[in-house]
Amino acid sequence: MGIVGPDPAVAAVRLAVRRALATVEAGDLVLVACSGGADSLALAGALAFEAARSGHQAGGVTVDHGLQDGSAERAAAVVGILTGLGLEPAEVRTVTVGSEGGVEAAARTARYEALDAAAAGHRAAAVLLGHTLDDQAETVLLGLARGSGARSLAGMPAVSGIYRRPLLELGRDLTRRACLAMGLTPWDDPHNQDHAFARARVRGDVLPALEKGLGPGITAALARTARMLRDDADALDAWAAETQAAEDEPGAVRALGVRALAGLPRAVRTRVLHRTAIEAGSPPGTLAAVHVDAVDALVTAWRGQSYVDLPGRVRVWRRYEKLLFGPSETPRKD
Amino acid sequence: MGIVGPDPAVAAVRLAVRRALATVEAGDLVLVACSGGADSLALAGALAFEAARSGHQAGGVTVDHGLQDGSAERAAAVVGILTGLGLEPAEVRTVTVGSEGGVEAAARTARYEALDAAAAGHRAAAVLLGHTLDDQAETVLLGLARGSGARSLAGMPAVSGIYRRPLLELGRDLTRRACLAMGLTPWDDPHNQDHAFARARVRGDVLPALEKGLGPGITAALARTARMLRDDADALDAWAAETQAAEDEPGAVRALGVRALAGLPRAVRTRVLHRTAIEAGSPPGTLAAVHVDAVDALVTAWRGQSYVDLPGRVRVWRRYEKLLFGPSETPRKD
Repeated sequence: MGIVGPDPAVAAVRLAVRRALATVEAGDLVLVACSGGADSLALAGALAFEAARSGHQAGGVTVDHGLQDGSAERAAAVVGILTGLGLEPAEVRTVTVGSEGGVEAAARTARYEALDAAAAGHRAAAVLLGHTLDDQAETVLLGLARGSGARSLAGMPAVSGIYRRPLLELGRDLTRRACLAMGLTPWDDPHNQDHAFARARVRGDVLPALEKGLGPGITAALARTARMLRDDADALDAWAAETQAAEDEPGAVRALGVRALAGLPRAVRTRVLHRTAIEAGSPPGTLAAVHVDAVDALVTAWRGQSYVDLPGRVRVWRRYEKLLFGPSETPRKD
Repeated sequence: MGIVGPDPAVAAVRLAVRRALATVEAGDLVLVACSGGADSLALAGALAFEAARSGHQAGGVTVDHGLQDGSAERAAAVVGILTGLGLEPAEVRTVTVGSEGGVEAAARTARYEALDAAAAGHRAAAVLLGHTLDDQAETVLLGLARGSGARSLAGMPAVSGIYRRPLLELGRDLTRRACLAMGLTPWDDPHNQDHAFARARVRGDVLPALEKGLGPGITAALARTARMLRDDADALDAWAAETQAAEDEPGAVRALGVRALAGLPRAVRTRVLHRTAIEAGSPPGTLAAVHVDAVDALVTAWRGQSYVDLPGRVRVWRRYEKLLFGPSETPRKD
């Protein structure tokens, strides 16, 4: 009796994809980035199903990182699955992974470059990524280890340029069940179990320990935290940008008014100082909280300090009611 | 040759106490809350030493929670140690721990009530608490499990009313070494090893797993995160309070302008809605993000919804360009 609907896991993945497609004009091409793993494979299956109904073109890309023996064969097999799902184009992008910042970071950079190129080449309107709630929780924990505030805990955005992450509120167990129900066989990347990688350690050891100690809701709590802290960081960055635009006097030496800075909440003031230091030439990667704190002391703990030197040969000093940012060879006194 | 200074651990604890005393007028009484554990015992030893030099009066309080056999004898022994250090007054405050919100929360509430009473009774200007960097990291992880945003990740403040936490940037290993060097024998509370308590699980299992997976810097990173997110939460709360003061029309039914709300960043708007809901009578403990999100949808995803009912019989509805907060029996239509 009655109509047998799709498996609930399949229905959940399809609904998530349907919502993502609703933000893309009908007729436009949507690509799915598919590693062959359960998350992106379920996403590919749902995209093929939904696009046929919503009138979108749907294609798939798999990236061959060339980091494992047989990766080319693996990529070709994924393309075979994508083609079998009716996705067109379905193609491999082969990349060369460098070593800057570690293999994980280099692979990530190469992967997004390849996806950018594929999207541009095919004039795709959107690229779907298979990150789940569990990936988001792992990202928050990795950001926690950096200890660099709200932005580093904000996780991955659901929408960023052409990228969409429809599965960000769904658990990983669900994508595996969806694959099974759709008759798709996911590939388990051995890198995901290789504890030389920080993310694999978070997945294999850290999150299970958190669940055991703090309860099974921790994964969802981490994802919820990411969403809220992303909003916080957006609001505070906007406030800082607005303040800086009103205060900053661009030129070889940038100037901020001390009185206006002192009247800001610390969270906003440190963001204004951070932004101004970067615009004055300090490299974002090396400018740390300890540097910003030293600059902040020129405002809030003034006792006649001479100057603060920042990475990138940027010097900050105070003259009367101005905080000045210039090259470190700047003559400090008149 | 040369002068043998104090042990570096003792010097670090004393420096931290000296800085805390610098915020208190000479001659005033400063109390230390001491459980007999390494953290608060090192703090008591350093307070006795520093207060004698800075001209402060120094006393100590130990709270007997009555939760373990022999707790009265244990408390009396702590008072003996405090007296031996020259602290005066040195006294036990005995409390009755209820069960509301669990034993940990109830013990905490009873403890702070006792410390408030001791401070008031002796006209103390400040009460020093022995929380360390490790306690702060544990607090952040416990807040993470709640998943309720920046404020729940902001940890414990260094200064709050009469309370001071001088050791918040020092590790727990250091207080133990300081006790040893000062000839003080700390007591190890068996509750700290009792994994029925969430904090003990975090200390015994979760933090070690995080250190193993993410590196030994995680404790300091968590404490740094707390400091930054506290600043963020303060700034955003101030922004929300200012906006609300400008917008809110107090009365039996509170009104906020929809247009002004819609122009705010989401982080600020949700805080304004949260504050207004609480002022309209919704209990802070039960008002959750999901409720605030539903109210937010009346502003940002308006499609003629009827109303949103919040805990505490508070109803929110939209009429033309106003968002109205009133009792849930409020007639909604004119």
